[in-house]
Amino acid sequence: MLLRTGFTVLAAVIAAGQAAPRQVSLIVTNATVVTTDAGRRVLTSAAVAVDGRDIVAVDSAAAIARAYRSADTIDARGDVVMPGLVNTHTHAPMVLYRGLADDLALMDWLQKYIFPAEARTVTPAFVRAGTRLAALEMIRSGTTTYVDMYYFEEEIARATKAAGLRGVLGQTIIQFPVPDAKTPEEGLARTERFIREFAKDDLIIPAVAPHAMYTLDAATLKSARQLADREGVPVITHLAETEDEVRTAEEKYKATPVAYLDSLGFFGPRTIAAHGVHLTPADIQILEKRKVGVSHNPESNMKLASGTAPVPALRKAGVPVGLGTDGAASNNDLDMFEAMRQAALLHKLASKDPRTLPAGDVISMATIEGARAIGLDRQIGSLEPGKRADLIVVGMHAARQTPMYDPLSHLVYTTRGDDVRTTVVNGRVLMREKKVMTLDETAVLSEARTLADQVRKAVGK
Amino acid sequence: MLLRTGFTVLAAVIAAGQAAPRQVSLIVTNATVVTTDAGRRVLTSAAVAVDGRDIVAVDSAAAIARAYRSADTIDARGDVVMPGLVNTHTHAPMVLYRGLADDLALMDWLQKYIFPAEARTVTPAFVRAGTRLAALEMIRSGTTTYVDMYYFEEEIARATKAAGLRGVLGQTIIQFPVPDAKTPEEGLARTERFIREFAKDDLIIPAVAPHAMYTLDAATLKSARQLADREGVPVITHLAETEDEVRTAEEKYKATPVAYLDSLGFFGPRTIAAHGVHLTPADIQILEKRKVGVSHNPESNMKLASGTAPVPALRKAGVPVGLGTDGAASNNDLDMFEAMRQAALLHKLASKDPRTLPAGDVISMATIEGARAIGLDRQIGSLEPGKRADLIVVGMHAARQTPMYDPLSHLVYTTRGDDVRTTVVNGRVLMREKKVMTLDETAVLSEARTLADQVRKAVGK
Repeated sequence: MLLRTGFTVLAAVIAAGQAAPRQVSLIVTNATVVTTDAGRRVLTSAAVAVDGRDIVAVDSAAAIARAYRSADTIDARGDVVMPGLVNTHTHAPMVLYRGLADDLALMDWLQKYIFPAEARTVTPAFVRAGTRLAALEMIRSGTTTYVDMYYFEEEIARATKAAGLRGVLGQTIIQFPVPDAKTPEEGLARTERFIREFAKDDLIIPAVAPHAMYTLDAATLKSARQLADREGVPVITHLAETEDEVRTAEEKYKATPVAYLDSLGFFGPRTIAAHGVHLTPADIQILEKRKVGVSHNPESNMKLASGTAPVPALRKAGVPVGLGTDGAASNNDLDMFEAMRQAALLHKLASKDPRTLPAGDVISMATIEGARAIGLDRQIGSLEPGKRADLIVVGMHAARQTPMYDPLSHLVYTTRGDDVRTTVVNGRVLMREKKVMTLDETAVLSEARTLADQVRKAVGK
Repeated sequence: MLLRTGFTVLAAVIAAGQAAPRQVSLIVTNATVVTTDAGRRVLTSAAVAVDGRDIVAVDSAAAIARAYRSADTIDARGDVVMPGLVNTHTHAPMVLYRGLADDLALMDWLQKYIFPAEARTVTPAFVRAGTRLAALEMIRSGTTTYVDMYYFEEEIARATKAAGLRGVLGQTIIQFPVPDAKTPEEGLARTERFIREFAKDDLIIPAVAPHAMYTLDAATLKSARQLADREGVPVITHLAETEDEVRTAEEKYKATPVAYLDSLGFFGPRTIAAHGVHLTPADIQILEKRKVGVSHNPESNMKLASGTAPVPALRKAGVPVGLGTDGAASNNDLDMFEAMRQAALLHKLASKDPRTLPAGDVISMATIEGARAIGLDRQIGSLEPGKRADLIVVGMHAARQTPMYDPLSHLVYTTRGDDVRTTVVNGRVLMREKKVMTLDETAVLSEARTLADQVRKAVGK
């Protein structure tokens, strides 16, 4: 694919000025294009040409106009075009629990609200509706790929595909009975079926999601890893999120969570660990050595008072760190622009240095570095010919964005998910000028409100 | 005023059902009304009746419909009505420097960008244009009262009044030459003229703004306090923002910044101190004893890596703590919803306790507690009969706000300034259904972009 496209571009360039422009499926033009490529190029008055599912060219608006034509051209004058955002950690259907309970101690929150709600309301229909709502929110706020871990993940996959989003979707495996599996064996069997259903899908990458070291025994952790290796799919887990987890690992295994999992042979490439808040320098070395990606979730870590992940140290050690929102029950939204801003601010404060995580770095984390953390950086995460056409058009005209000296600064420090005007995944326009094309917004919101009544009853609220 | 209004309401209540409803100037109805009154009442299917500049009643929609009628009725079905937000610290015209430079060490940021830009661009015309842009942004994001400190404050006052906002506006006094005064004496004289111009204004409360203990000598600090006492106006200052400031105070005066200022007799009622990041328990006792209000600016303190203010300790000691955005050059916007969310998250993290600063507390800080911090809590900060009609209608229908279990949670954790639909100050509708009535938005944005070119030249960018 890469070779063929490269050749086509070359041919088009050679022919420019003589031959007729090449017909492509979509051109987005007159924008400031933030590529997040290796040189972190930012092009002004630029354009992106898309054909089918792929980007075929990124160049000046004039050069694209000479070489390409399309019946579908989006004029993004004064706006930014950038890669779609990669949300490296969420639990999509939990949008239906957003704001159900906040400002509580973690165990009260889990035991009085989240666990009872999940036990009484999580069904395939609930998961479908929740995923549709999450997809609506993600498309609206510029996320084009998301990494998920929940129950009935096949339902999430179907709803994600219908909405047109790209997903690395992990079926949860957990030691105790959960809504979609009474035992971990049942969970593993369900995961295997799920993986096979979506093995060759263009948008869905099925994954194994052993929940965490503290909710699984060693045998199940090993089985999960073996299943992933056998099927050639990624592994998604929670790791070193709280001090409690570290204490548990120390008491039970005389090791850090990372060292314990490593001793089981749990880590491998295409493994993404969410949180990584409480890590020792030795832990960071293990993660680097095993090529584990980390998903940093600053808002969730702050809201639940989990702590501050050592993001600068991880990145310095060469561990790819993506950004995530976590589930909406602990955030309370899926807006990756908030995650970017929060990461930039939090690590300045933590390091006592305002130079830490400059805007360009957090934009990379939300795009190419997140893609690298899940092993998809050859397909997505930057605007380059040959990559999938996952891109967003971000409006930069609000009063709060005026004037604009530096688009990177604005994307991180003054832009919201709601500024996203157009969202394209795999070459398909999912939202055009704020109108979502792949979901019936009114129906999705109405369905969510109806299900919320069930949730209220489930927790006696 | 309070007595007269109280009597009128009483008469209307007694007459309800028999006499014709009383004609008032504005009714906002069918909303969830977040009052932030002493009982923190939240009323569903409720309404607010406004006559002239005052709130005359807050009650159920049905009760208001029986007792009042108005040619101007806003149906806020499904939305929240709450007091307008009080931004307790900003430098309004600095919106024209937003994003000019970020991610730099404080001294590089100030000396290479902010000071040269200010020296070369701050004129009355610049300040007017900047204030218009800031007012546009504040009206759009639900701020109805703001506390300011900048140069040519009389221009800020005129532009604020024209936009219809309420302002506690402090003319800066500083030891070295600044754009509007070559000497502190000139600054003091300018401040006195400014105070007299706006002494009896309904929207503008002029104030004296000695910049900080580290930019003024003892004599000028005392003169500023004396001027404020003589004219009966508030004092606005920066206080204990950075570790550097604390070190300076220790070296020069063998005291903390708070203890030093107290030794000069600088503090008094109606004094608001911005930041208060580095405070000892003894400092907090002094602030409480002197009835000083503190403005907490979480985003600026994080972005500039200043530190974490001891907000829970201040509030426990009885010091009123309002929220602020600081100037847009160090934020980079004036969105008080971001300030609320950031305060809630930051202090959970800092205290390692997710119960710290629950949603209701930060909403109070952004409204009634901010009003108390500037001595205006009898006039504004809550929706109660007899208070000024400063209120906002906040849309709660976005995908990211669906479903809604608790409006307070949503206001803090998933709402943005852009969700504000209608803004009313002193009974006047400044923005109606997202259309700003008091400013020509296109002209304001265009003027800002033109001035940005001058700023670029000034810093060689």
